[in-house]
Amino acid sequence: MKIYDWPTGPYPARVRIALTEKNLQSHVQFVKVDLLKGENKTPEFLAKNYAGTLPVLELDDGTFIAESTAITEYLDAFDGTPTLTGQTPREKGVIHMMNKRAELELLDPISVYFRHATPGLGPDIEVYQNSEWGFRQLDRAMRGMRYFDEVLRTQPFVAGEKFSMADITVIGGLIAAAFLKQQVPEECEALKAWYQRMQQRPSVKNQLEMSALPF
Amino acid sequence: MKIYDWPTGPYPARVRIALTEKNLQSHVQFVKVDLLKGENKTPEFLAKNYAGTLPVLELDDGTFIAESTAITEYLDAFDGTPTLTGQTPREKGVIHMMNKRAELELLDPISVYFRHATPGLGPDIEVYQNSEWGFRQLDRAMRGMRYFDEVLRTQPFVAGEKFSMADITVIGGLIAAAFLKQQVPEECEALKAWYQRMQQRPSVKNQLEMSALPF
Ligand SMILES: N[C@@H](CCC(=O)N[C@@H](CS)C(=O)NCC(=O)O)C(=O)O
Ligand SMILES: N[C@@H](CCC(=O)N[C@@H](CS)C(=O)NCC(=O)O)C(=O)O
Repeated sequence: MKIYDWPTGPYPARVRIALTEKNLQSHVQFVKVDLLKGENKTPEFLAKNYAGTLPVLELDDGTFIAESTAITEYLDAFDGTPTLTGQTPREKGVIHMMNKRAELELLDPISVYFRHATPGLGPDIEVYQNSEWGFRQLDRAMRGMRYFDEVLRTQPFVAGEKFSMADITVIGGLIAAAFLKQQVPEECEALKAWYQRMQQRPSVKNQLEMSALPF
Repeated sequence: MKIYDWPTGPYPARVRIALTEKNLQSHVQFVKVDLLKGENKTPEFLAKNYAGTLPVLELDDGTFIAESTAITEYLDAFDGTPTLTGQTPREKGVIHMMNKRAELELLDPISVYFRHATPGLGPDIEVYQNSEWGFRQLDRAMRGMRYFDEVLRTQPFVAGEKFSMADITVIGGLIAAAFLKQQVPEECEALKAWYQRMQQRPSVKNQLEMSALPF
């Protein structure tokens, strides 16, 4: 399999963490696509992924799977034993809810803030910006951190008693926030303690080293 | 189980179609929450779903599952035989990708357009609007229709050879578009033909009758 990648980005980070958690690194070859040069908006790349975003997984049969959640579903099902996306109906439902909430309330708004209320990927790429909307999204993401802090006061992981894809997505959000120098609010102690624990996982530790590289 | 519901809305429509496809209607009791009165933003409701959106599924053990995709995952896993979310890794990956794409490129932008560039849920509810952003999202949704038209020129269903959750989400998008009098572009013949075929399914036919009711 191949992964079209942007090594320092928070969405590709989600897939790289999932890959390591599933111990599938040796099955995958990474192909860097340069966002700063707009390589993700060429007709060839848009034919792989209509949205022109990274990451994209290419299967050996030539199928392209875009969207971090969808790629995680694929990787988690690969060996027949899902550990990240749930096994029972209730687990699946709760993990998908918390994963989506981590996107909607944290990672996606931080990413919109980056693209619309900061220089983003640079003036050649950011030809339309709506900074008012961007700043609103930053507020939403900061509220999201407080929400996840509250969740983590009463349970060890974002979706309950087990590590899951939802934890990975919150980690993606905090990677993006750190990149933009948006700190987790001081009082979010449960969120900060959880993030410390997460960094003890080799999958997360490796990724944080990569995400800290120059852009 | 209970479903907190807004009967004419496109997201609740997704869950009602899934419920009928899975033949689980008799397991569920619907509870209407009045969006026009802001009943979805009371502290009690926000404790059920942080985002304050409908639909929300309440399990018999008291667990709340929000987010249409997560509810669909739950319902599809309920009887042990998934028919909407995929069985093989490849099916799961492709269905989740196309479902997410139907949200990102069609249903969600139409819904943002409604809330930001039309009177939306009314002046008491729409206290902040960003109409420039709203109109951009309408453009995005119209491009999304053209994309799905292209997909459906070469395959019978949104995610390939079988009906899936991704079809349901595109149907949600077209329900929302019709409500806002945004027509599918004339030349999108494959999309229109597919929508005709979809309306032959009892699950979709019933829902369209409900979604056409006054708001
Ligand atoms: N919904 C996508 C979002 C991915 C995304 O936004 N990736 C960033 C890189 S970290 C990107 O490709 N940005 C370029 C663009 O949006 O044009 C996913 O979950 O994978
Ligand atoms: N991401 C949610 C969106 C649901 C949604 O936006 N529902 C509408 C009703 S159709 C709603 O609750 N709107 C009120 C609000 O957003 O405050 C899902 O997939 O279920």
